[in-house]
Amino acid sequence: METPLAQYLFTRLRQLGLRSLFGVPGDYNLRLLDHVAPAGLDWVGNCNELNAGYAADGYARIKGLGALVTTFGVGELSAINAVAGAFTERAPVVQIVGKPPRATQDARTVVHHTLGDGEYGHFARMHTAITVAQASLRDPQTAPAQIDVVLQQCLLHSRPVYIEIPDDLVDVPVSTERLKTPLTLDMDTPSQSDEEVVSFLLERIHAAKAPLIFVDGESRAFNLVKEINELVRATQWPVWTSTWGKSLVDETLPNCYAIYDGECAPYKTYFDASDLVLCFGPHYSNTNSNFFQAIPSPAVTVNFTGTSVGTAKKTFYNLRVKAILSRLLAALDTSRLPVSLVVATELARVEQEGKEPTLPLQLTQKSLWPAMATFLRPGDIILTETGTSAYGLRSIRLPEQTRLFGPATWLSIGYMLPATLGAALAQREIQQGEHNADFTTFMPSTAEGRTILFIGDGSLQMTVQEISTMLRERLDIILFVVNNDGYTIERCIHGKNQAYNDVAPWRYLLAPAFFSAYGNEETDVSESSESLRSRNTLYVKDGDDLRALLQNEHLADGKGLRMAEVRLAREDAPEGALTRLLALQE
Amino acid sequence: METPLAQYLFTRLRQLGLRSLFGVPGDYNLRLLDHVAPAGLDWVGNCNELNAGYAADGYARIKGLGALVTTFGVGELSAINAVAGAFTERAPVVQIVGKPPRATQDARTVVHHTLGDGEYGHFARMHTAITVAQASLRDPQTAPAQIDVVLQQCLLHSRPVYIEIPDDLVDVPVSTERLKTPLTLDMDTPSQSDEEVVSFLLERIHAAKAPLIFVDGESRAFNLVKEINELVRATQWPVWTSTWGKSLVDETLPNCYAIYDGECAPYKTYFDASDLVLCFGPHYSNTNSNFFQAIPSPAVTVNFTGTSVGTAKKTFYNLRVKAILSRLLAALDTSRLPVSLVVATELARVEQEGKEPTLPLQLTQKSLWPAMATFLRPGDIILTETGTSAYGLRSIRLPEQTRLFGPATWLSIGYMLPATLGAALAQREIQQGEHNADFTTFMPSTAEGRTILFIGDGSLQMTVQEISTMLRERLDIILFVVNNDGYTIERCIHGKNQAYNDVAPWRYLLAPAFFSAYGNEETDVSESSESLRSRNTLYVKDGDDLRALLQNEHLADGKGLRMAEVRLAREDAPEGALTRLLALQE
Repeated sequence: METPLAQYLFTRLRQLGLRSLFGVPGDYNLRLLDHVAPAGLDWVGNCNELNAGYAADGYARIKGLGALVTTFGVGELSAINAVAGAFTERAPVVQIVGKPPRATQDARTVVHHTLGDGEYGHFARMHTAITVAQASLRDPQTAPAQIDVVLQQCLLHSRPVYIEIPDDLVDVPVSTERLKTPLTLDMDTPSQSDEEVVSFLLERIHAAKAPLIFVDGESRAFNLVKEINELVRATQWPVWTSTWGKSLVDETLPNCYAIYDGECAPYKTYFDASDLVLCFGPHYSNTNSNFFQAIPSPAVTVNFTGTSVGTAKKTFYNLRVKAILSRLLAALDTSRLPVSLVVATELARVEQEGKEPTLPLQLTQKSLWPAMATFLRPGDIILTETGTSAYGLRSIRLPEQTRLFGPATWLSIGYMLPATLGAALAQREIQQGEHNADFTTFMPSTAEGRTILFIGDGSLQMTVQEISTMLRERLDIILFVVNNDGYTIERCIHGKNQAYNDVAPWRYLLAPAFFSAYGNEETDVSESSESLRSRNTLYVKDGDDLRALLQNEHLADGKGLRMAEVRLAREDAPEGALTRLLALQE
Repeated sequence: METPLAQYLFTRLRQLGLRSLFGVPGDYNLRLLDHVAPAGLDWVGNCNELNAGYAADGYARIKGLGALVTTFGVGELSAINAVAGAFTERAPVVQIVGKPPRATQDARTVVHHTLGDGEYGHFARMHTAITVAQASLRDPQTAPAQIDVVLQQCLLHSRPVYIEIPDDLVDVPVSTERLKTPLTLDMDTPSQSDEEVVSFLLERIHAAKAPLIFVDGESRAFNLVKEINELVRATQWPVWTSTWGKSLVDETLPNCYAIYDGECAPYKTYFDASDLVLCFGPHYSNTNSNFFQAIPSPAVTVNFTGTSVGTAKKTFYNLRVKAILSRLLAALDTSRLPVSLVVATELARVEQEGKEPTLPLQLTQKSLWPAMATFLRPGDIILTETGTSAYGLRSIRLPEQTRLFGPATWLSIGYMLPATLGAALAQREIQQGEHNADFTTFMPSTAEGRTILFIGDGSLQMTVQEISTMLRERLDIILFVVNNDGYTIERCIHGKNQAYNDVAPWRYLLAPAFFSAYGNEETDVSESSESLRSRNTLYVKDGDDLRALLQNEHLADGKGLRMAEVRLAREDAPEGALTRLLALQE
C-alpha cells in the first residue's frame, strides 16, 4: 500500500493525537495543505506565522504534540521566535516547512522567498540551535523513516523539530508499511538499569529522615505529572513547586505548599535541613529560581528528567522515567517512610481566600488576584502572560485539577494570547475524547473546565489579531485584559516614567466586534454602538465593577469569547519582587 | 571629550539623517533607550518587533538608513524575518540588540530570554546570512570604530547590519573624537580606475546604434535614481524598468515606457535588436523578471550596481558608481548619440487614463486600478502589498515625482502596513527638511505628497496593530483595504476553493476606533456607532461608491489616517499572470 508523502506525515500526527494543525498558507505549501483535511486534521489558519507558532506551542503543552505549517523563508522566519520559545520551555512542536521543488533548489534558481543567492539551506540552519532534529525530505524511499525518527525525537525531548518538504514531493507515493506500527516512546525491552535505578531510589527514600519533593516545570513536558501526584499522595511528604511548576501538584492536598522561593522561613529552614530532595523536571533559570536562590542543595538532591535520574555523583541515562516512577510506586513500602514530619506539618500554609471576597473591594493588584481566585474551578486551564498577570496569580492556591501556564524562561510577551487559542482547542478536543493518553498532559475528570487568559495591554497588542481565530473557531474563552497603560513590568525594572514604556491606548472591548463580521453585513453596519460593545464584554474600573464581574454568570458560564477590561494603575504591581524593584527607582 | 557608548551610536545615526528609531522595549535594552531622546532621535514604539523591523525597512528605503532596537532573544528573533527581507531587497537597516551584561554572559548564567544553555552567541549567528556586518561590543576602547565600520558597511551595501550592546556597556564613556568626522561613502581619493571606467562607458555609448536603458530596483538602494533620470533626459534613449524598478524613472517622460516583461512585442523586438543595454541595479528573481524572461541579453549589457560596472567579459569593482555617473554625464557628448531612434519612437505607449474615469464605473479589478490612477499626485509615496494590489498598479502610468514601493523577491505579506508607517514618518521628516541629502532616495520638489497604501485583507490581518502607531504618531496616511475574502493571490496559484485560503471576516472600518482611545474615555464609551465607524472611513461596495470615493475631498486631502474598504470578488484578479494561473485551475 502507498499513500502520498504528505498524507504519511499527517497520518502520523493524527495517530499521535493531533487534531488541530496551525499555520498560514503560502505558495510553497498550498499542495501540502490539500492533504490536511483528508488525513482527519483540522486546519486552523492563523493571522500570522508567529501566532501560529505560539498557538502550536500552547496546544502542544497540553496534548503532548503540536504542529504548524509555514512556507519557506518568510513564513518560517516569522515563526522562529515561537520555535525558540518551545525549545527553551520544552514544548513538542513540529515545524513543517513547504519548500520550493527539488529541481528549483538544485538549479539554485533565484525564486521569491529566498535571499536571492541561490542558497536553500539558510533557514534550516537558522533552526539548528532551536530544534532537536531536522529532516530535509528529498527521497520518497527514505522519507517515512526520516519522519518517524524526527517525530520520535520531538516526543522524547519534548522540543521542536523541523521538517522541510519540497513542493514536488508532496504527492509522491510512499509505503504505508510503517504506519501499521504506532510511534511510541516505550522501549522494546526494559532497560537493564531499571532495576538498579529503582533500588537506588528506594534505598534513599526509605532511609530519609527529612525528605521533600520539589516539582519544576519540565515535569509537565516529560509527562510525569500523574506519577508525581501519586508519589505525593503515597509518601505524604511535603511538596513545593518552582514558579513554573505551579499547578502541577494538586494544591488542595494538605502536604502541598506554595512556590518555594529560597528566601522565606520556615520553608527555607526545612529545605536547608532536608536530607533528601526528589526533584522533578528541574529548570533553573533566573526567572524560575528567584535568581538561583530556590535551587535545592545538590548534595541531597535526586534529579528526574524525562530520560535520566541522577545525583551530584551519579546519573543514569536513557531511561523512561515515567516507567521508572510506576515501578517505584509499586515497590514503595510506605511503612518504611519517616512517620513524623514535625517540621513539615508545622509549616504555615497560604490559605485560599474565602469564596466571598472581602468587601469593599478595591481595584488594585493587591485585591484583584485573591478576588480572581474565587473565579477559578476544577478543570480550568489558566494562562497568565509575562508581566504583572503572571506575578498576580502566583500566590493564589488553585482548585484541584487545574492547570496554570505561566512564563518560565523565554518570556516573549505576546505569546500567551495565541497560546490560549491553542490551549482552548486542546481543551475542547480532550473534553470531546480526542487525545492520545500516552502524551496528553492534562486530563481532568471534569469536562466543565474553561480556558481563561490574564494578559496585560502591552502584551495583548503584540498578537491581538489572534482573537479573530478564537472567534472563528467558536471557542469558549474568557479573556481578562489587565490594562495598566503600558509595560508596567518594564516600569518596575527601569524607566518608571519613560515614554518608551507607554503603549497606545486602545478601545480593547471593541475587539470582538472588530475581529468578527459574521452575519449580515448591512445589519452589522447599522448596529448600535451599545450592541457592538456589549457583545460579551465587561469594563471594570473600580471595586464595584469587580464585584459585579465576580457575580456575572454570563462571563463565567456563557459561550464564546467573553472579555473583561480591568483598569489598574500604571505603577501598581503585585507585592513582592516587582514592588521592590519599583521602590529602588524612588 | 567623552560620551556614553549608547550616545555615540545614536549620535552617529542622527548624523546620517536618522530621526525616527523603531523598536520595542525589553529589560535588556531599557538603559539603552534612555539615550534615544537625548541624542535627538524620536522613539517610535511599535506593537511588536516584526512590525518594528518592517517599519525600519520602509523608512530606510526612503531616508537611506533605518534602525530598530530590540531586546536579546525574544525581540530580535521576532524581527528576524524583517531583517531577512531587508537583506534580500537591500534596505539599509541597523538591528540594535540590547544584550545581558558582560559578566552574565561570561559566567554563562542561565537568564531569561536565553535558550537555557548558557550560550550567548546563538542569535547573532542566526543573523550571519542576513547581515553584511556585525559588531558585538565588548570594549569601550574599540566600540566607536566597530560602530563606524558596521554602519559604513550598511550604507555601502544597502543591507542590514547587527550591533549588540551589553546592558552594562551602555553608559560607559567613549571618546567622541571620531564623531567630528561624519561617516561618508566618498572615497578619500578618486579611484584610479574611474577614468578608465568613464572612457569604457563613453566608448560604448557613443558607438551604440540601438541602445536602451533598463532600470531595476537596486538602483534605489544604491541611490542612483537622480543620475539615472539625468541620463534618461540627456540621452533621450528609450527606457524600461523591471517590475521592482517601476517609478524610479519619471514616467511622464516621452521616452519612458512601461515595465519590460520580456514577452510582448514591440518591446521585445527592440530589446532583441538592441546593441547596448545600460542596466542599473539588476535584481533577477523569478518574481522580478517575469520568470527570467525580462533579463537583457548579457552580450550587450553593461550592468551598474552601487560599487561595480561590468559586462559579461569585464567587471570594474570597488567604484563609487554614483560618482562615476556624475562624471559620465559631464563628459557625455550628446551630439555623438544616435540621432534616429525610429524603432523606439514608434513603440506603442500605455497612455494614462483620463482624469475622469469612464462611467459607469464597476467595482472590479479591471476598472479599480485605472480609476485609482486618477487619485495619485506628484510627491505621493504609494505602497502596494504583495497580492492583487501589487499587480493592479503595475500597468498604471504614475505622475512625476512619485515613488512606488511594491514587492520584489522576499514577498512577506504583512510587510507593507508597517513599512507604510516607516514611509510616512520618512516622508514627513523630508517634508520638514529633516534628511541627509547623501543618502535620502526620494526628495520631490513638492511638499504636498501623501503616503498611500493598497493592501489586501489577508495581508492586513498579519500586522494590523501597527495602525495604532500610525494614529499615535498622528500621521497622514490613506489606507485602502482591498477586501476580497481571503488570499486571492494564493487562490490564483492553487486551491481556488480551498478553505485554507479563507481568512476571518473583520469589520475593517472599526480599526481607527479600536486602535485609538485618545480623548475622554467616558465620552468615547457613549459614542454612537455611526461616529465610531465614520471616523475617516469609507465603505466601497460598488461603482457608485467608487465614484464617490474619487470625489471625496476629505479622503484625498484630509488629515490623519483615512481608510477605505474596497470590496472585490474572491476570484477577481488583475488581468495577466494571475488570471492566467486562475484559468489553469478551471
